[in-house]
Amino acid sequence: MTTDFSEMIDRRHTNSVKWDVKDNELPMWVADMDFRTAPGIIKALQAKVKTGIFGYEEVPDAYFQAVQHWYATEHNWTPDTAWMRFVTGVVPTISSAVRRVTNVGDNVLVQAPVYNIFYNSIVNNGRHVLSSDLVDHDGIYAIDWDDLATKMAAPLTTMMILCNPHNPVGKVWTADELAHIGQLAATNHVTVLSDEIHGDITDADHPYTPFASVNAVNAQNSLTCVSTSKTFNVAALHAATVIIPNEALRNLVDRGLNTDELAEPNAFAIPGVIAAYTTGADWVHAMNAQITANKQTLTAFIAANVPGLTVIEGHATYLVWIDCSQVTHDTQALCDFIRAKTGLFITAGAVYGGNGHDFVRINVACPAERLQDGLNRLATGVKDFQTQA
Amino acid sequence: MTTDFSEMIDRRHTNSVKWDVKDNELPMWVADMDFRTAPGIIKALQAKVKTGIFGYEEVPDAYFQAVQHWYATEHNWTPDTAWMRFVTGVVPTISSAVRRVTNVGDNVLVQAPVYNIFYNSIVNNGRHVLSSDLVDHDGIYAIDWDDLATKMAAPLTTMMILCNPHNPVGKVWTADELAHIGQLAATNHVTVLSDEIHGDITDADHPYTPFASVNAVNAQNSLTCVSTSKTFNVAALHAATVIIPNEALRNLVDRGLNTDELAEPNAFAIPGVIAAYTTGADWVHAMNAQITANKQTLTAFIAANVPGLTVIEGHATYLVWIDCSQVTHDTQALCDFIRAKTGLFITAGAVYGGNGHDFVRINVACPAERLQDGLNRLATGVKDFQTQA
Repeated sequence: MTTDFSEMIDRRHTNSVKWDVKDNELPMWVADMDFRTAPGIIKALQAKVKTGIFGYEEVPDAYFQAVQHWYATEHNWTPDTAWMRFVTGVVPTISSAVRRVTNVGDNVLVQAPVYNIFYNSIVNNGRHVLSSDLVDHDGIYAIDWDDLATKMAAPLTTMMILCNPHNPVGKVWTADELAHIGQLAATNHVTVLSDEIHGDITDADHPYTPFASVNAVNAQNSLTCVSTSKTFNVAALHAATVIIPNEALRNLVDRGLNTDELAEPNAFAIPGVIAAYTTGADWVHAMNAQITANKQTLTAFIAANVPGLTVIEGHATYLVWIDCSQVTHDTQALCDFIRAKTGLFITAGAVYGGNGHDFVRINVACPAERLQDGLNRLATGVKDFQTQA
Repeated sequence: MTTDFSEMIDRRHTNSVKWDVKDNELPMWVADMDFRTAPGIIKALQAKVKTGIFGYEEVPDAYFQAVQHWYATEHNWTPDTAWMRFVTGVVPTISSAVRRVTNVGDNVLVQAPVYNIFYNSIVNNGRHVLSSDLVDHDGIYAIDWDDLATKMAAPLTTMMILCNPHNPVGKVWTADELAHIGQLAATNHVTVLSDEIHGDITDADHPYTPFASVNAVNAQNSLTCVSTSKTFNVAALHAATVIIPNEALRNLVDRGLNTDELAEPNAFAIPGVIAAYTTGADWVHAMNAQITANKQTLTAFIAANVPGLTVIEGHATYLVWIDCSQVTHDTQALCDFIRAKTGLFITAGAVYGGNGHDFVRINVACPAERLQDGLNRLATGVKDFQTQA
């Protein structure tokens, strides 16, 4: 069985957060794909529903073996199953780890512009956000290593949340970069939490490298969060895995996960994830090919039809980061205008911090026909915005 | 469609926590039923699986309307839908509310013997357990009102966790008792969290009364947690509802639920709960009749065949509380012996606090045939325990 990535599925009125929009609106915002998930997952969930009993679930060894199998076969990394814990989601795990690993008032280091919910996990728990902003050199984002070293060395900096690969700029960090980050972190007693939820979603020629796979220093000083959630479009499966090679750190975080009630799977999480990781590889490769094609379509269309916008070349995630600084430095106003004028709902970049106010983020995980509709609306919206400005 | 409550479903090797036992063992411990859930729920979940897209879900008005409909038709209480919040579970909500409503070092009042996980929610968050133990007058548990008033008045007492109806003693609190508790709590500025997860499971002639339904004092000073989880045997659906009539309290708790990541439903929670509350009444009434019959079977069997054990008459929950004090004051030793000797796995009462060490708790939510197997093992185990002692 294969999935038809061109199928125009109507998701309106299905309790979808993404599609909670007006009838004329087209949502290309939150990280949620308009593709049906892999057939093997649907089959496994059907079998689970058929049992008709949904009492307390435990996590079998087969779950951890499936995670291990996936990382071994897809990412050349074989994490020990003993390092793994089931968790109900990556974001709850980040919040829980911030509470367990750091103290109130500590700095948690991030690299803005970055996934905005990191800020919530830090600020809502009374910690401070410290950003070593990525530097944008003509569309190529890079780390300012001197700045990062200085911020790592600040006495109150006790954790870094790494986005690997990076949302929203689509950057796939190299093994050398990850080793450099890991060395700075270990030297400065900063624990690295690596959010690798987008790791499976890359162009075929730009695979990602798990942070902990690089060397023992990285492994022993990190928590890695992975999930089928973005990869297979199953955010509401509420399943993720945290991988912690260091025993003391694992025990510390484990207690928090239990106290915070994040360790118990719902009835569908286990069969869904096992099916994903054991039967879903071909689907992911096909999905990635579709995303790569969609990014190329978007890039070519904008170059030809939307003067003033520059697409940042990204090789990971289905989220495209677009520089609008030639049009405006307030992309929230631009996005509001585009939505009101054309119904296209995309994300203004300011929420991601750093120079995000110059950018928009567009989700291209949809059929080509829907993407083209979005691109036409984008061109109209930007043109009209410039005319009225 | 109806459910056959006599069907002997094999739940071994299904990732069931309850059934993670040796092949010769019979589990009658954790609050999880051996009955297939209501047909309407299975049908709704099948329809959801068929959509094949499991992105971020939101909670529609229809969810809250279904909760309201259930309480109006089943329990003569019509809570305003604006008072309700979706949560992923009752226990996580209790933990979150303890953190938001009380301070580290405060007393949280309970009535031992009581559901042991309450203690975790209190102690794991650095609060103190203060128990106004229920008083056992020859098998009838009652509140010691003077003791409760004294403990309510302690300056550090800021919350009471009420178990309504009461697990493990099976007590259905009367409206008068609930009003008395509510008056003491309001007078002493103690917020009442009423865990009503077992409220739907009562003998037909002993319906439960929602704490907040009794009067405005109770309503304005309480959080009520309800769920389909016990009622429909869907613990792993990960869905519950907290009902908070007082706006200031609701806002306070709501922020905690969001920070603690308890407010987002998985893909199956919403359709499952709506189906349960709108199509499941007949199923629940049939299930309750089966539980009532099972309790009668157990009571008669023990009276006839297990000298030394006294069943506490309870009208709520499918958990039966049995006084073993004529046999031992260490029921953990008794339960260990019974399990080793006969494979019957029941719960020793000490974990519930109070006089629990004299008791065992047995889960009778199973087919009559399986219940009889358990009762036979119980009789053998107790007899052999007394012989060896």
